[in-house]
Parts: sequence; structure tokens; C-alpha cells
Amino acid sequence: MPRVALKKILEQIKPVSAEKLAEIQARIDRQAKPAGSLGRLEEFARRYVAITDSEEVRGKRIYTFAGDHGVTEEGVSAFPQEVTPQMVYNFVDGGASINALARHVGAEVQVVDMGVATDFEDLDGLIKRKIAKGTANFTKGPAMSQEQALQALLTGVEMARQAKNDGIDLVGTGDMGIGNTTPSAAIAACICHLPVEQVTHRGTGVDDEGLARKILAISKGLAVNQPDPNDAVDVLAKVGGFEIGGIAGLVLGCAAEGIPVVVDGFISTAGALIASELHPNVRDYIFAAHQSVEIGHHHMLVRIGQQPILDLDMRLGEGTGGALAMTLIEAGLRVFREVLTFDAAGVTEGSEQ
Amino acid sequence: MPRVALKKILEQIKPVSAEKLAEIQARIDRQAKPAGSLGRLEEFARRYVAITDSEEVRGKRIYTFAGDHGVTEEGVSAFPQEVTPQMVYNFVDGGASINALARHVGAEVQVVDMGVATDFEDLDGLIKRKIAKGTANFTKGPAMSQEQALQALLTGVEMARQAKNDGIDLVGTGDMGIGNTTPSAAIAACICHLPVEQVTHRGTGVDDEGLARKILAISKGLAVNQPDPNDAVDVLAKVGGFEIGGIAGLVLGCAAEGIPVVVDGFISTAGALIASELHPNVRDYIFAAHQSVEIGHHHMLVRIGQQPILDLDMRLGEGTGGALAMTLIEAGLRVFREVLTFDAAGVTEGSEQ
Repeated sequence: MPRVALKKILEQIKPVSAEKLAEIQARIDRQAKPAGSLGRLEEFARRYVAITDSEEVRGKRIYTFAGDHGVTEEGVSAFPQEVTPQMVYNFVDGGASINALARHVGAEVQVVDMGVATDFEDLDGLIKRKIAKGTANFTKGPAMSQEQALQALLTGVEMARQAKNDGIDLVGTGDMGIGNTTPSAAIAACICHLPVEQVTHRGTGVDDEGLARKILAISKGLAVNQPDPNDAVDVLAKVGGFEIGGIAGLVLGCAAEGIPVVVDGFISTAGALIASELHPNVRDYIFAAHQSVEIGHHHMLVRIGQQPILDLDMRLGEGTGGALAMTLIEAGLRVFREVLTFDAAGVTEGSEQ
Repeated sequence: MPRVALKKILEQIKPVSAEKLAEIQARIDRQAKPAGSLGRLEEFARRYVAITDSEEVRGKRIYTFAGDHGVTEEGVSAFPQEVTPQMVYNFVDGGASINALARHVGAEVQVVDMGVATDFEDLDGLIKRKIAKGTANFTKGPAMSQEQALQALLTGVEMARQAKNDGIDLVGTGDMGIGNTTPSAAIAACICHLPVEQVTHRGTGVDDEGLARKILAISKGLAVNQPDPNDAVDVLAKVGGFEIGGIAGLVLGCAAEGIPVVVDGFISTAGALIASELHPNVRDYIFAAHQSVEIGHHHMLVRIGQQPILDLDMRLGEGTGGALAMTLIEAGLRVFREVLTFDAAGVTEGSEQ
């Protein structure tokens, strides 16, 4: 059943019209400024308008997916697992970095429990979709079953539909999960066909020994489970995480619903990579928020085919880079809507462009 | 007289306290996130708070300085000189890119006529400080006199004082002047001791022949006038521009008044370079808004010692990159003010940092 549901969603994903993109750029080129001089702001406007047929953002929302990871047993993180639920409470209370940055750009934050190893009471702002209390340790077998991987994807799709119903037209991805740079690097190594060392970095701040343990754990996980790089659901199940599956599903769902989706940093990009392997047109809907400090990030973005909008030496996750990128996308739309044409402004056009 | 006035301003410029910067960073390090994980957002907060002793931005203003250039006679621009006053009217009417982006980030725009080759009537939002109707063609002699260069600098300083009096605590620089990438490249070549070809690019969009004419004009200007790279006022006078002098003065004035100043792209950075050559501590007050497409920009930023905040393939000027950078600086302050400490949030600290 879930395989059929996923197939239906994939069938809904259409490419963004090249003709529409060209029409929008032609309108941009009539505005009183040298052709192309606003660089990527023009790209943001062009893509957003082509995807949505709208020229402004009415509602912005960031979904921060949380989950725990059995692989933390291998000593891959500088923080203990108890920090995952502690941070979930911090998000819900509005005291974390993502809350501050979302407030700054006027976005909502919704937190989705995909698989934290703690039972939560009902909390305003927490969406409870726990699949299990953390993944299994993937050095010893698959992180989750194929059924659970599909459940994670469909939960993300559900969030995209919820966003659509709520009038949200710009969505951001975010993550929380102690240890989750480890599955993200495993996904990168597998799908990008790269050595583990080339995509594995320090996460929240492990030292050299921690980094060595992390590389070993990922290498073991790939050897033990043999995920099939041509089957993204298999990769997610064997070496992924519940929150990564939620992100992948959100990205898929946004592409299916025609919502531009701002993908945060390393963990979010691992999710977006899984989504874009499932259907190539997903790439058209992705805005890559920023370049993470994590060394594996770049390789995944290259495979997805999107350039990061910001490069501010960030490596926090939560959706923080996505929040900042949202306001730059809106800046592009503001220019698109408000800057006069050469004719209307009474400005003479250039000759040599 | 103006030389004495300039000397007094330079004497007011203090270094930003290293002790204060360290204290602020220590407070940031107690916030519930991995140490350093917000990268440059932490730098923005640290520097802003150290400069201003305030944790928020009450008022933001961008000064867009306009001037014309005698060197346009040499065919160095894709646009005719009449576009400078046309764009001044567009700024004042609110229809240009800088107006749209300033509105997006909640900043004011003030336009300063430093030397446009047109008489303006009195206009709301236009500050009339015309020094002359355009500079002289610097391929034949100095662009302006030393007196005029000092007058341009002091006008910029006056704007910084005005900002201080108006309760503005974050200032942005902007420029308008057909032909003004030519004097900016001349300033870069002279002060950075680089070949003209290495710092000269296409501006608003000249073709290969236009670029060759531009390189020739700058080479002539430097040969004819022999500006002294160790005397920034001499460089400004011989191969600069009135709006570039205004920007340089604004940056100096902001440093003297303790106001962080966001320096836009290529032309603004030429002004900031002159300011930072006049007093090394000026560099502490500069936030480099973005990396321009212009090839000479990087070299000036290296000499100033500031890294660009954004890199969005922009090359418009007006202050557009500065407006965008302002909201990222504010994002850093928002995190600084609002994110809970590990203790307050009940989050366990990491072990290996």
C-alpha cells in the first residue's frame, strides 16, 4: 500500500515550465537596471513565480523534523541523545535559534516528532508522528524497515499537503536529531558514490577520535547493509533516519503540490537528495538555503543541481539557514513586483548589452 | 581648513575593543547550540554589539550618493550620462531596486547629489550637496581638485553625523553614477598596486571593445596624474569621483561616530578603501555586504580585511547588496537576544567541543 501511495505522489510531480521561466525573465529584463545585474535575486523571482503563478509569499512555514539514531551508541556525536527531546521542548517554547530566525523573517515553525526516543505529552506546536523510538544502530543491521521508511516519506508528504491547505506558499525544511550527520553522510557516500572520508565531518563538534569513530561506523553501516544507490527508499531504510525521511517526504510533497521548498543544510540536503533521486523533477522545486561547513554537503548539492544561496559558515541545522534564505527569495519577489520598467521610470536603456 | 577638519575626524576613530568582543562571544557560547555553529551570524552580533553597546537596530538608513564622470567621454559605459539624473528621480520616486530592497528590510533611503551634471529642483528625499557638475575627464588631468576631494569627504562625514542625530544605528552606502566603475577600478589599481587589467571589468555591461577602452582610459589616467598610493586623498582627487568621496566620508564618519557601516559593492568598496587607507581602525566598523561580479572587488576587500556577507552574482550598486546584508546582521542580533542559554533551556552541553 505505501509503495502505491508513493508512486501516486511521484506521478503528480511536473517539471517547471521553461517557457514560463523565459517569459518572467523577459519581464525582469524590462526593469530599469542593467540586464542581469541583480544576479540570483532574479533567479529567485523567476523560479518562485514560475512554480507558484504568484508574485508574493503569503505564508511561510518551516517544518523541523526530529528523530533519534541508534548509531549514537558508536560514539559519533559530541552531544548525548537526551538533547534531542530537550531541544524539541526548546523549539516548542520558542527559545531556540530556529525560533529566533523564523520570527526575524516572519515564518512559522512546526516541529514534527518522527522518532524521538522519548514519549511527549501533547504540546502546542508539536506534531506527533512517531514511527519508533529512534532508529536501530545501522552498524548492526538496517536503521529501519522499508515500511517505516515509506511511512516517514508519507508523513513528510502529509505536511506538504497541510501547508497547501493552510495557504502556505513557501516551505522550509529543518532537522533535529543527535547523531544525524552520521546517517546523512552515509546517504551522501552511497548515492554520490564517494568514499566515506570525503563526505564525513565533525557535526556538532566531535574531535579527531570522534571523527574516526564516525567514519568507521558509516563504513560498517554501508558494508553490513549494502544499500542500493539506485533505490533511494532502500538507502533511507538501511542507513537513514526518521527525520531525514520526513524531510525527503516534505520535499516530494512540495514538488507534487507546486510549493517552492527551501532546503536547509547538510541533514536537510540528505533528505532532499533522497527525494530528488525518486523523481528528477523534484530538483526544480528546491532552493538550497546555504552551504554548510560539513564537507559532504557540496557533493549532494552538485548532484541535486542547486547552488547554495548563502555561505555563512553555519552548521546548526534546525532550519536556520532556510529561514534566512526565505527572506532573500522574498527580496527577489519584492524587486520583481516593485521596480519600474525603463519606460515607466523614464530611464534611457543601455546600448551594449 | 578642510585638511584640519579631516584630521580631527580621523583622531576620533577608536579601535573596537578586543576585550568587549571576547565578552560578547563568551555570552554567545552559553546559548543552547554547538559552539560556533551559527558561524558568521555570531560575528555580526559580536561586532555590532561591540561597536554600538546596543543589542538591536533601531533605525537603518542607506545613503545613495550620485555623481557624474568626465571620463564617460572615453566611451567607458554601456549607458549614456543622462541616466544618472534619471535614476536620481527614480530613487526619489521610490521606483528603483534600492527602494524595493530597502522597503523589504525596513531601511530608509536618502539620495545625495554629490556632483550630477544636471541641476535638480528641491525634492523630498534628495540632499543637495553638488560639488560640481561631474568630474573632469581624468585621462587629461585630475578628476577634481584636492579641495573638492576634501569637500566630498566632509559631506560624507556630515551624513554620518546626521544619521547619528536621527537615531540611526546601522548605515549603508550606495552609489549612482554612469561610468563610476572606471574611477573605482583606477582607485583599486593604484592603492592595491595591481595591473589595470586585473581590476577592470564590464560594469553595467560593456562589450569587449568597451572593456578595452575602459582599461586604456584608466591606464592613461594613472599615467597622466600619477596619484600617490600612500595619500588616499590624492588618489580620490586625481582618479576618483564625487560620489566615491561621499561614500569614503560616510564610512569615515560612521567610524568616528561609532556606527557600523554596511558597504555595498564595487564602487562603495572603492570609497571604503579610501577611508580605510586614511585610518586603519576604520576597518573595524565595516561590514562588506556582498561579493560583486566585478573582478577588482575581491582585491579591495582583501586589503580592507573584511569578507563579503553575500555572494549572489549582483553588480547593480545603488546600495542593493547593503540592504540585504542589513537584514542578515539583524538576524545575528535576533539570535543573540532571543536564544536561551543551555541552563535556561534545560539542554545538556556537549562534551568534545
